[in-house]
Amino acid sequence: MAMTILDWPFITPGIPDAWFTRDRVPLTKEEIRVLTLAKARLGSGMTVYDIGAGTGSLAVEAARLVAPGQVLAVEVNPLACDLIRQNSERFNLGNLQVVAGEAPEVLAGLPAPDRVLIGGSGGRLKDILARCHNLLHPGGIIVINAITPETLTTALTFSQGRGYRVAALAASLARLEPAGRVHFWRSLNPVHIVQLIKE
Amino acid sequence: MAMTILDWPFITPGIPDAWFTRDRVPLTKEEIRVLTLAKARLGSGMTVYDIGAGTGSLAVEAARLVAPGQVLAVEVNPLACDLIRQNSERFNLGNLQVVAGEAPEVLAGLPAPDRVLIGGSGGRLKDILARCHNLLHPGGIIVINAITPETLTTALTFSQGRGYRVAALAASLARLEPAGRVHFWRSLNPVHIVQLIKE
Amino acid sequence: MAMTILDWPFITPGIPDAWFTRDRVPLTKEEIRVLTLAKARLGSGMTVYDIGAGTGSLAVEAARLVAPGQVLAVEVNPLACDLIRQNSERFNLGNLQVVAGEAPEVLAGLPAPDRVLIGGSGGRLKDILARCHNLLHPGGIIVINAITPETLTTALTFSQGRGYRVAALAASLARLEPAGRVHFWRSLNPVHIVQLIKE
Amino acid sequence: MAMTILDWPFITPGIPDAWFTRDRVPLTKEEIRVLTLAKARLGSGMTVYDIGAGTGSLAVEAARLVAPGQVLAVEVNPLACDLIRQNSERFNLGNLQVVAGEAPEVLAGLPAPDRVLIGGSGGRLKDILARCHNLLHPGGIIVINAITPETLTTALTFSQGRGYRVAALAASLARLEPAGRVHFWRSLNPVHIVQLIKE
Repeated sequence: MAMTILDWPFITPGIPDAWFTRDRVPLTKEEIRVLTLAKARLGSGMTVYDIGAGTGSLAVEAARLVAPGQVLAVEVNPLACDLIRQNSERFNLGNLQVVAGEAPEVLAGLPAPDRVLIGGSGGRLKDILARCHNLLHPGGIIVINAITPETLTTALTFSQGRGYRVAALAASLARLEPAGRVHFWRSLNPVHIVQLIKE
Repeated sequence: MAMTILDWPFITPGIPDAWFTRDRVPLTKEEIRVLTLAKARLGSGMTVYDIGAGTGSLAVEAARLVAPGQVLAVEVNPLACDLIRQNSERFNLGNLQVVAGEAPEVLAGLPAPDRVLIGGSGGRLKDILARCHNLLHPGGIIVINAITPETLTTALTFSQGRGYRVAALAASLARLEPAGRVHFWRSLNPVHIVQLIKE
Repeated sequence: MAMTILDWPFITPGIPDAWFTRDRVPLTKEEIRVLTLAKARLGSGMTVYDIGAGTGSLAVEAARLVAPGQVLAVEVNPLACDLIRQNSERFNLGNLQVVAGEAPEVLAGLPAPDRVLIGGSGGRLKDILARCHNLLHPGGIIVINAITPETLTTALTFSQGRGYRVAALAASLARLEPAGRVHFWRSLNPVHIVQLIKE
Repeated sequence: MAMTILDWPFITPGIPDAWFTRDRVPLTKEEIRVLTLAKARLGSGMTVYDIGAGTGSLAVEAARLVAPGQVLAVEVNPLACDLIRQNSERFNLGNLQVVAGEAPEVLAGLPAPDRVLIGGSGGRLKDILARCHNLLHPGGIIVINAITPETLTTALTFSQGRGYRVAALAASLARLEPAGRVHFWRSLNPVHIVQLIKE
C-alpha cells in the first residue's frame, strides 16, 4: 500500500481516531487526546516526552503543536514502535522520534523535557515519575492518563510534598452514533487525567 | 483597578476559568471550551461567530487561535457584552468584536463565517441554525453546546436532510478538588457538544 | 441442559447480569435495572407492564418485587419471548406472563397497569405512551429507559400538558474490572431514565 | 413543629431527598442510596451497620428493608446523631438505633453485622475495615461509598488478599431539572461504590 500523506490543516488538536493506524494497540481517543494536550499546555519549541506512546496518536498531535520543538515517543513494545513510525510518516512529521525501550532506563541521555505525557507505564509509574521529576525544570508539566485507580493514586501520592500544583479531571464521555433513523450514545471508558505543574 | 494584561503563552486552549471576569454570567468551563474548540477545528485566518457568547471565554480562546482571523461575539445581554469587552481587553485581543443584539437578526451584514459556535440561543436555535446554514460554505462547521435535551434535539433535527455530517459528544466531567489531606471529585454539569460539518 | 432453579434471596433488586440467559438480545444492565425499578416505585400486588422486555431481566426483578401482583412482559421478537420464558422459569416465577406481539396493539384486553416500564418501543413510543396514558390511573408511574436522544425527547414532549410530574436521570456508569494486578474502569453505555408520575 | 409521620409505601428504595431533614449534614442522594442498598443485597432480618451515617437517609431506607432486622447507625457528629433520630422518628422506625461515637472503637459490644455500609470514616477507613472484617461472617458484604480517590484506594488495597470478591461502580449521575419551558441537566458529584463480598 502506497503511503498517503495526511494533512490536518487545523491549529486545534482532535484528529479523528480513524486517521491513525492502530492494529491492536490501544489508541488514546480523540477527545481524551484533546483534553490531555490542553492540560499539558503545549507551546512552540518545547521538548515533549510521550511515555508509553502506544500508537503514537498523542505524539503525532503533540509534534504538530510544538514544531520546531520535538516529541520523543518512548515505547517498549516493538509492534507499537512500528505503528508510531508509520503514523509519524503518514503525517509527514520530522520532529517525532521513537525511543524504543523501557522507561525510565531508556530516558538516560535524552534531552530534558518541558512536558511529559504518560499514557502507559508498565507498572513502573513511580520510577518514571521520579526520573521525570528530576529532569523537569520549574514550570514544567507532567500529564498522566490513568485508566486504573491504582495509577491515579500513584500519581497523586507521588506529587505530594514535591512541589507540584495538582489537578485532575475525570472524563466520562459518550459519542452519539447513528443507528438507522435514530442515534444512540456509546460510552468511552473513563479516563482520569492528572496534571502536575512543577512550582 | 488597573487592567493587567494577561498572556496565555501556549498554543493549546484551556485558559483557567479564574482568568476570566464573569460576574454572574454563565462561563463555559475550561474543559468544555477545549472540547468545543477542537470540534470546531479552527485554523489561522478563519472568521468565527460565537453566538450567545456569555462572558466571552470561548470567544477569547478562539480569537487567539484564529488570529489574524476574527471572532464576532454575538450577545444580547448588555452586561455580558461588557464582560466580553473586558475579557477581550485583558487578553489584549484586537480581533474579537462584540456584536450586541439578538441572533439571528443581528447577524445581517456580518462577514460570512467559517465556523459558528453556539453557546446560547434564547430559545431561537432553529432560526439561528437556519441563518447560519445559509451563510456557511461547504466544509464549514457549526458547534452547538447543549445543556438541555431540547437544544440537543433541535440541533439533531435541524441537521437532518440538509447535508451535514453529524457528531455529538456527551461530556460528564469532574474535577478533583483538595479537601484537607484528601481530594474529592466535583462534577461539572453535563454538556452535549454537537458538531455539524457541512458537506 | 437441566434447568437449575435460581434463587435471589434478597429484598433489594440487582441480580447479576450473568444470571440471565441472554443470547444476543439486549440486556438491561444490573445497575440500570436497580435505578429503573426504584424510579418505578414498586409495591406488593401491583400490575406492571414491561414493554420491550428483551431478555426479561427487568420483568424478572419486577415480578419478584410485586408478587402476588403480576408482570406482563410485552415483546415482539419471538426469540426474546423465548428468553423471557426461560429466565422466568429459572427464577421459578409464577406471576410473569409473556405477551407476544407489538405494542400498543397487543395491550388490548390486558388488565390495567399500576406501573409501566418501557425498555424498547420499536419506534412507536408515542403510540405506546398514548395508550398507557389512557390506561393508567392517577398516581400511576411510567418509567422509560432511553438510550437515544430521540426517545428521551419523545418522552419529555409527550408528558407535557398531560398532567405528569416529570423527572429524568442521566446515568453514566462504569464498572471496575480486574486486569492482572490492577483494575480498570469499563463504561456502560449511558441511559436516560425518565420517570412520569401521573397526578 | 408537630412531627408528621411519613410513609414510603413502596418495596423499592429511593425516598426523595426532600423527605429527609438534613440541616447542613451531607445527604446520600436518592439514586446513590438505591445503588448502595442494591450492592449491599439486603434481606429481611439482617443486622446492618451504617458507619458515618450522616443524616441517616441510608439507615432509614435500610431499616425499612431489613425489618424486623435492625440498623445500627454509627455517627460521631452530635448534630448528625440528632438528625438521624429525627429522620428515624419521621418514618416511625423502631429498628434503627443511633450509636453515637467514633468508629471503630464504638463498635465494641455491638451485635455482629450481616452487612456494613460505610459512608464516612473520618480518615480511619483502614481501622474500620479491619474491625468489620473480623466481625463479618462469610457471605457478609461491606459497601463503601467513596467520594475521594483516597477512600477508593484504601478500600481496594484493604480487600486484597483477605478473601473478598471485589467490585466497584463509578456513578456519574445527572438529574433533569425544569428551567422555564425547557429542562437542563444538573450533575450529582461522582461516587464510587465499592462492594466487598466475604468468601
